[in-house]
Amino acid sequence: MLHSVRFPEDLRKLPIKKLPQFCDELRQFIITQSANNPGHLGASLGTIELTVAIHYVFDTPNDKLVWDVGHQAYAHKIITGRKERFDTNRKYKGISGFPKTSESEYDAFGTGHASTSISAILGMATAARLAGNNSQQHIAVIGDGAMGGGMAFEAMNQAGGAQENLLVILNDNRIAIDENVGAMSQYLLRITSSKSYNRVKKGLWKFFNFSNFIVQAISRLGNTIKGQIVSKSNLFQQLGFRYFGPADGHNVIKLVHVLSNLKAIKGPKLLHIVTVKGKGLPLAEENQIAYHFPGNYDPETGEIIIPDEQNTPPKYQTVFGETILELALHDEKVVGITPAMATGCSLTIMREKLPHRVFDVGIAEQHAVTFAAGLAAAGYIPFCNIYSSFLQRSYDQIVHDVALQQLPVIFCIDRAGLVGEDGPTHHGIFDLAFLRSIPNLIIASPLNEIELRNLMFTAYSERNRPFAIRYPRGKGIFTDWKKTLEKIEIGKSKLLKQGQDIAVLSLGPLGNNVIQAISILAKEEITPTHIDVRFLKPFDKTMLDDVCNTHHTIITVEDSTVVGGLFSEVSEYIVKKQYHTKVVPIALPDTFVEHGDIANLHTLVGFDVEGIVEVFQKLRE
Amino acid sequence: MLHSVRFPEDLRKLPIKKLPQFCDELRQFIITQSANNPGHLGASLGTIELTVAIHYVFDTPNDKLVWDVGHQAYAHKIITGRKERFDTNRKYKGISGFPKTSESEYDAFGTGHASTSISAILGMATAARLAGNNSQQHIAVIGDGAMGGGMAFEAMNQAGGAQENLLVILNDNRIAIDENVGAMSQYLLRITSSKSYNRVKKGLWKFFNFSNFIVQAISRLGNTIKGQIVSKSNLFQQLGFRYFGPADGHNVIKLVHVLSNLKAIKGPKLLHIVTVKGKGLPLAEENQIAYHFPGNYDPETGEIIIPDEQNTPPKYQTVFGETILELALHDEKVVGITPAMATGCSLTIMREKLPHRVFDVGIAEQHAVTFAAGLAAAGYIPFCNIYSSFLQRSYDQIVHDVALQQLPVIFCIDRAGLVGEDGPTHHGIFDLAFLRSIPNLIIASPLNEIELRNLMFTAYSERNRPFAIRYPRGKGIFTDWKKTLEKIEIGKSKLLKQGQDIAVLSLGPLGNNVIQAISILAKEEITPTHIDVRFLKPFDKTMLDDVCNTHHTIITVEDSTVVGGLFSEVSEYIVKKQYHTKVVPIALPDTFVEHGDIANLHTLVGFDVEGIVEVFQKLRE
Repeated sequence: MLHSVRFPEDLRKLPIKKLPQFCDELRQFIITQSANNPGHLGASLGTIELTVAIHYVFDTPNDKLVWDVGHQAYAHKIITGRKERFDTNRKYKGISGFPKTSESEYDAFGTGHASTSISAILGMATAARLAGNNSQQHIAVIGDGAMGGGMAFEAMNQAGGAQENLLVILNDNRIAIDENVGAMSQYLLRITSSKSYNRVKKGLWKFFNFSNFIVQAISRLGNTIKGQIVSKSNLFQQLGFRYFGPADGHNVIKLVHVLSNLKAIKGPKLLHIVTVKGKGLPLAEENQIAYHFPGNYDPETGEIIIPDEQNTPPKYQTVFGETILELALHDEKVVGITPAMATGCSLTIMREKLPHRVFDVGIAEQHAVTFAAGLAAAGYIPFCNIYSSFLQRSYDQIVHDVALQQLPVIFCIDRAGLVGEDGPTHHGIFDLAFLRSIPNLIIASPLNEIELRNLMFTAYSERNRPFAIRYPRGKGIFTDWKKTLEKIEIGKSKLLKQGQDIAVLSLGPLGNNVIQAISILAKEEITPTHIDVRFLKPFDKTMLDDVCNTHHTIITVEDSTVVGGLFSEVSEYIVKKQYHTKVVPIALPDTFVEHGDIANLHTLVGFDVEGIVEVFQKLRE
Repeated sequence: MLHSVRFPEDLRKLPIKKLPQFCDELRQFIITQSANNPGHLGASLGTIELTVAIHYVFDTPNDKLVWDVGHQAYAHKIITGRKERFDTNRKYKGISGFPKTSESEYDAFGTGHASTSISAILGMATAARLAGNNSQQHIAVIGDGAMGGGMAFEAMNQAGGAQENLLVILNDNRIAIDENVGAMSQYLLRITSSKSYNRVKKGLWKFFNFSNFIVQAISRLGNTIKGQIVSKSNLFQQLGFRYFGPADGHNVIKLVHVLSNLKAIKGPKLLHIVTVKGKGLPLAEENQIAYHFPGNYDPETGEIIIPDEQNTPPKYQTVFGETILELALHDEKVVGITPAMATGCSLTIMREKLPHRVFDVGIAEQHAVTFAAGLAAAGYIPFCNIYSSFLQRSYDQIVHDVALQQLPVIFCIDRAGLVGEDGPTHHGIFDLAFLRSIPNLIIASPLNEIELRNLMFTAYSERNRPFAIRYPRGKGIFTDWKKTLEKIEIGKSKLLKQGQDIAVLSLGPLGNNVIQAISILAKEEITPTHIDVRFLKPFDKTMLDDVCNTHHTIITVEDSTVVGGLFSEVSEYIVKKQYHTKVVPIALPDTFVEHGDIANLHTLVGFDVEGIVEVFQKLRE
């Protein structure tokens, strides 16, 4: 049956009773495909029935559908013309792992970061109303984790206040990437585990089958709904939404009925469905955190194929996790903070030993930073770990709550630089630019995992102002990395190799590619100097004076946009001092970089060893 | 009595029955002082009884008190050792208009931007718990407007989930700077206007007087509170807080009783008080928007002294307001968006004529931008007006939801550059740096109000990608400014004066100071070229090539940090092209700039005409 459905219009030709079988086939397709092509399996297995029901009921793409985060949209992609290309999911030059407007008209709005969908759909719903378009429907699907993000609340607040026509589907799978946290999550759990819900659970759908009557009744009520809300005890109703649910998100036929009925109801509606992350793959249902993104697995059993990583260097994430634990065991003032990325950033290592000193604050990057600032103001030593692209959410808090007050919050910026398959929504390529202009802030990046440890120790030891350490996703270079912690002088670069004519100033682990390039270049009798700058701010100006006085060319190397980071810092200083040194940047171009594996992306942007070698060769020409 | 109270310890010596009189004296002091020294009058008049009650009951500064936004903290400042300096409020070298940790140990956390207080106090409360300090109390005071900000929700979510010990006082005056909007605000109104509230209103305090019993009862309940919450219909209780109120925020004696009783209750508590913005000054109570920041007024009558502004140039804000109205009348797709600053940015001008096409989304900068993106995706033409320092809250949304998708949202960035008396929390000095690294974005700044109009028209006409226009707080230079709209070529600078040797490249209205400086310099036979660059991005490289080939020195002028903006752009290009042109920046130093009137600040940082003249004179030496 899957074969016959390329687009939602094909789906709509199926009789409703065929939908469960169609969902089964779709689920099997995703399980089979993702076994050898890793992706966000768990979330997408949980939304198959919902996806099918939405496209069956609504007139997509004329009706607008926005998937929050978008990692749960695999079924959506497959039934909106991308089945044949699904084997390229997340691959270089393949389809994106997230909705993307340039990829399909069915992707009404591009997503990737959490909690944006209600704002976007509210904009579209408002536009439709202004344009007098009463028939267009507007649907946002958002998870219980993302619903805890402040931005989602802001959008709910406006939508409920303005009484715009839209449907928010709260996909409550009771988990974010890690266990969901916070009062909202507890509230949802109370609803779905309450006796009254369980009592009506089996009869619940009766309520919805009854709904023609109810719909008419509600429609007649019209504006009196506000009067109604005040007496209602549901949190979403108090925010001006009509609340429906909780309902079983895996019963596709009943979902079709519910959605059909909701179409006729005006105003802001929230349908609360309960789904199971990893649904249909027993191992994934049992271990939802591991199967959020399981990597390769056996398509039959679901068993994860664990790559042999003995004697390989650790991930930077592991180094972070082990090192903060080491510091925390030594000093009880050390605490760890993550906005819903405990597993991803390996703060789980510390949480296992010191659970009361690790704070997963939920998908709440703004709050995470000011919460850390409050801890720092009270004398604690917060390591606030946030992915670079999500730190964009905390910019104001870094400026206003941390740097302005010179509070010694330590930012560990994970996923800095190109991240690979997750693509442009997740590349962490602006942090050097947006952080460099903030006064009082120290900005550093380690060459390798030993330096990461030492920078963390340095930040811990210093503590007179905020300190940001950026490092990439993935592996370091040493298997024997757990050396004694050493303090690094703030603002001091490190000479890696003394050469002549040309000096390479590299920031971060890309310097390792430079080291390789230089060893290749030696054969061509090109012998540049190589300096690991380590600190973007404060910058080592003494080193730069020396370099400018003894070299005719500088090559700056940074895993970041060419605008605003290391290249800018060096350029500004050279111009101020009127050196005549030529400067050539190796950095990301001033465009958004596509998705794909790191090797291909590095080749694309010239970060690989060959690319770096070429820059030197061109300079000789 | 006011005379005898310099610090809270003095206050605590007063018998409780004297507090109403003390509040009266304090109120009169603020009214008298602010009459000739403009400040945030309305908000501070509304919190006098609350301030006195808090300091009377709690052991400040050992107990921690955070004022959200902080513009309501005048009474707090006056009774915490700053009465004698209150006549310097907001003045250059005077005390700050906001809480500031470096100013007083009673200011537990610096504020200025909205919705940060709960995050900060939660950090401190968590620290106290970790340190085993059970006696320290933690209080955040937050307005109903700020409570609608997503960050406040994020903090409530964690606090309610984690059941930390803290008290949030929701100061519900039913207004932000403008009328408060959104479902939360409607919800609070329903609580405070409900029959049951009004019925118990007079008897309400009885409940609290009864509270010794209640406190003991609640304390005994301990952890069973969670079970309790599920049955409760209050929104804050659903978020894990114990809710108390609503209560009259102007009855100081009863507030003292309530707060005393709340001290003993563990866990997260929310006290909902109702206050009147402008309380005690009849005109201010009647016209709360005008008296948010009334300027000078008659201390006896409260009548605002309207400065004679006939034949003076308009504010940039007025020009924005009139011009968007002009465009909106011409094209029904034009819509205006503001996060709670309709009056401040003059979107009120359009709202008066076209109310259905102006959206005040509340204090919700993150949402505002993605809501605008949704409108743009649906073919509307959103002008999203946000103050520069608040735009820091939207950085991720600009990158992820707008620029990545190349949606033609038009950002009108008000209050760009130094803003004056509001100081470092409000200076809009990072936007050039944080925006410049974003691909696809056009960044412009007008020399004067006519150029502002033309840039708005250009942005309106172009619409193939996002467009940011930054302009300052305050007046332009022309009285006859309402010229026919003209399109400006994107990325094209404008030669204002052809000279020699030195070229000044200025961005924005500081260029007018440059014009004056150049006319003074003519007498010294210094005749520089002057170019209004207009666009920071895309930058006019043809112009820069010309300038570099014909001048030995460039002076860049920008009302922004020296790191990351115009000076960086020019430096990068010069270094890439290996010009030997010297570049001297006139820009803000890489530090936070203090508060004060613009004239003094401009002298401080060298933005005034004399400062600019001096740069030239030094170059000649």
